[in-house]
Amino acid sequence: MKNILILGAGLSSSSLIRYLLQNAEKEQWFLTIVDQNQIEIEKKINGSKSAEAKVFNALDPDERKPEIEKADIIISMLPARFHVDVAKDCIALKKNLITPSYVSPEMKALNEEAKAAGITIMNEIGVDPGIDHMSAMRVIDEIRDAGGEMKIFESFTGGLVAPESDDNPWNYKFTWNPRNVVLAGQGGAAQFIQEGKYKYIPYNKLFRRTEIIDLEDFGRFEGYANRNSLMYRSLYGLEEIPTIYRGTLRRVGFSRAWDVFVQLGITDDSYVLEGSENMTNRDFINAFLPYNHSDSVELKLRHYAKIDLDDSLWDKLVWLGIFDGEKKIGLKNATPAQMLQKILEEKWALQPDDKDMIVMYHKFVYKLKGELKEITSEMVNIGEDQTFTSMSNTVGLPLGICVKKILNETIQTKGVLIPTSKEVYAPILKELEEYGIKFTEKQIHPPRLYNEEQTWK
Amino acid sequence: MKNILILGAGLSSSSLIRYLLQNAEKEQWFLTIVDQNQIEIEKKINGSKSAEAKVFNALDPDERKPEIEKADIIISMLPARFHVDVAKDCIALKKNLITPSYVSPEMKALNEEAKAAGITIMNEIGVDPGIDHMSAMRVIDEIRDAGGEMKIFESFTGGLVAPESDDNPWNYKFTWNPRNVVLAGQGGAAQFIQEGKYKYIPYNKLFRRTEIIDLEDFGRFEGYANRNSLMYRSLYGLEEIPTIYRGTLRRVGFSRAWDVFVQLGITDDSYVLEGSENMTNRDFINAFLPYNHSDSVELKLRHYAKIDLDDSLWDKLVWLGIFDGEKKIGLKNATPAQMLQKILEEKWALQPDDKDMIVMYHKFVYKLKGELKEITSEMVNIGEDQTFTSMSNTVGLPLGICVKKILNETIQTKGVLIPTSKEVYAPILKELEEYGIKFTEKQIHPPRLYNEEQTWK
Repeated sequence: MKNILILGAGLSSSSLIRYLLQNAEKEQWFLTIVDQNQIEIEKKINGSKSAEAKVFNALDPDERKPEIEKADIIISMLPARFHVDVAKDCIALKKNLITPSYVSPEMKALNEEAKAAGITIMNEIGVDPGIDHMSAMRVIDEIRDAGGEMKIFESFTGGLVAPESDDNPWNYKFTWNPRNVVLAGQGGAAQFIQEGKYKYIPYNKLFRRTEIIDLEDFGRFEGYANRNSLMYRSLYGLEEIPTIYRGTLRRVGFSRAWDVFVQLGITDDSYVLEGSENMTNRDFINAFLPYNHSDSVELKLRHYAKIDLDDSLWDKLVWLGIFDGEKKIGLKNATPAQMLQKILEEKWALQPDDKDMIVMYHKFVYKLKGELKEITSEMVNIGEDQTFTSMSNTVGLPLGICVKKILNETIQTKGVLIPTSKEVYAPILKELEEYGIKFTEKQIHPPRLYNEEQTWK
Repeated sequence: MKNILILGAGLSSSSLIRYLLQNAEKEQWFLTIVDQNQIEIEKKINGSKSAEAKVFNALDPDERKPEIEKADIIISMLPARFHVDVAKDCIALKKNLITPSYVSPEMKALNEEAKAAGITIMNEIGVDPGIDHMSAMRVIDEIRDAGGEMKIFESFTGGLVAPESDDNPWNYKFTWNPRNVVLAGQGGAAQFIQEGKYKYIPYNKLFRRTEIIDLEDFGRFEGYANRNSLMYRSLYGLEEIPTIYRGTLRRVGFSRAWDVFVQLGITDDSYVLEGSENMTNRDFINAFLPYNHSDSVELKLRHYAKIDLDDSLWDKLVWLGIFDGEKKIGLKNATPAQMLQKILEEKWALQPDDKDMIVMYHKFVYKLKGELKEITSEMVNIGEDQTFTSMSNTVGLPLGICVKKILNETIQTKGVLIPTSKEVYAPILKELEEYGIKFTEKQIHPPRLYNEEQTWK
């Protein structure tokens, strides 16, 4: 019998726990699930004999350590900043650890200790980060194994609403943390490299410099640049690649409309509005427009953001109700970003029958035997319902499969890892296909280049 | 004999020290000037028998305290963050202190202790902050003393190049810390109130929402909003005023051209550019424009920033040499803001014969005996040369005069102060006029209002 300890059983752990319970009997696993909320755990355990709920504060080392000691592997679903503390316990007690979160510098610094302890600390094994690493590295390794030289790598991921539930003019609903959506792109220029030239996009232009992506069966998307694409060169062993770009996918037209909010300044989370508790939607928008004693908020906004009378972008703004002068937003001492989030949450809420969708798209251009070639790899996954969303499945399934592959010693590498090596991604991607998370790879003729002469070099 | 201790003798202290030396014999003063640079002090003392140079680290309390003990008043020209430490020494030793800097929350917290020690700690007594407080409060107090009710207060200050030295298409040169000019407006939305409506301008729109100010004899200026105008309501006792706005003056056309840099993202100081040491001006600009293998940087920028072919804004950009593809900027690991500053420093440098200019303009609208009235108050001051600049004079003279007025007990109020009370501003403004720093006040008929109905309320 192998003991699996899960720290934190929030929303995103539904699919993980279902997978582990489904495999528990066959694999001889016993799950201990720790959270502050007994009811939530019991709901997820759903009467299974292969798991028990424990209610205590997983952030308290004195409570946590005895449980870690009893386990063979630990999955930390705690907020990302607590993973390092858990990792130190795991090193001390020589237990494997899995987290879906980005490797922090403090986590990275534990690599040698983890190796010395003979344990695997696997991170970034959900979706973006996670499935993106694995699906990209599979193609990159294939290209390199065949003797190819990578020239362009572009990668886009989006958490969106499924086509059957896509019924608003933004073609968007909140399928994940709304706050992160409102603040997306803030905190530094987007950085990437294109044909050997470093490129920087400030926040105030981010949503105006999008790329169009066409997906067979799923139509057109647009992508805006993610924070820092440059660090993926070393993660993926692409130090010399002349073009690398990572982006976030939205339906076409979203970004241009979102940019109106950026230009107004209402995505700012750094200060509190005076008298926010008495503001209607209309007051809120007006606070960011020049004063005039008679002009309407509508005309002032059209002029300020240069929105033509026949521009369908306007429908998106009207649909959100931002000109409503009756209803108060109702937040005290709120930042502009919090006020905007409140307005959006009402309108972009997933309805009980709605489904979400994760879209991932990679483009690889490479030189092989005197030829330039292109491969694309795409994955579209639609959620089952509001519990087993695509977000929950694409985070939870790779986590769960990784647990299995570590426990059955398919994955043996020790240290602080992310899933970029074949030992890790190959078995996980293979099993993910059984759950409908499948990448379609295509050769594109002729390859789409930015500068043929440069790419040949 | 009264002992005056000056901590820090940098560039901005020239006029202060000259004023104090000119008055030393008559007033029976002896100056002790502390700096790390003996030559700089000696140059400023210029052979006077009324002063001595001391070279030590004024940031070291053990070295500083014995000197404070010997003095009757201390002037701190140290970087603003060190004033609080000096203030604590002054409280312990019961010595008056003067600084030109903004009152920090830590400084403000010393008010009761300063009162108990029976000392005056005068702050914000240079120019913006300083002369702006004094000249505004004189008019505001006059209006209130006559029974008037303040309705609109707008105030603009600019550090500019004098008309006789104004010979470039930006009508601007660096007359003060270039870094502050490059970073101006960053770090939070500008906040003000207009006709009872709170208004917020994000950084990316700040330089596009300017006001035009006409000054007799000096022509047109434009003003962009300063960070937070709202706090001036409590500083000036204008808690109920429906319109308060503070701004920075530039010559007309400056802000619209500067906005091109904001939109490009090249005023960002938060990250380092890859390979900055090898970048030419042209490479630098191109790093913020979309990649294209054949389009020119010029056309890409015209398109990106929507600059028409016949727009004279373009001349400003060309004149700066931003399209120069030959000369390297030559900074290693530099932020965009540092690179831009380097380009500007060459072009916007004051030449040996150039003079600077400080412009200040206030507008007051008030209700008095059933009538709406307007007063404007303006001041233009031109520097003498590159040592006794207008900036140095308008900072140093009010400081020096304040020293005199505290030592001769014209100013007697104790505690942590700024110069907003009549006891302080009246004698200082009066003596400043002898040095040509003089405000011209005018009644304007009819008053210029934003919303007559609202203002009547």
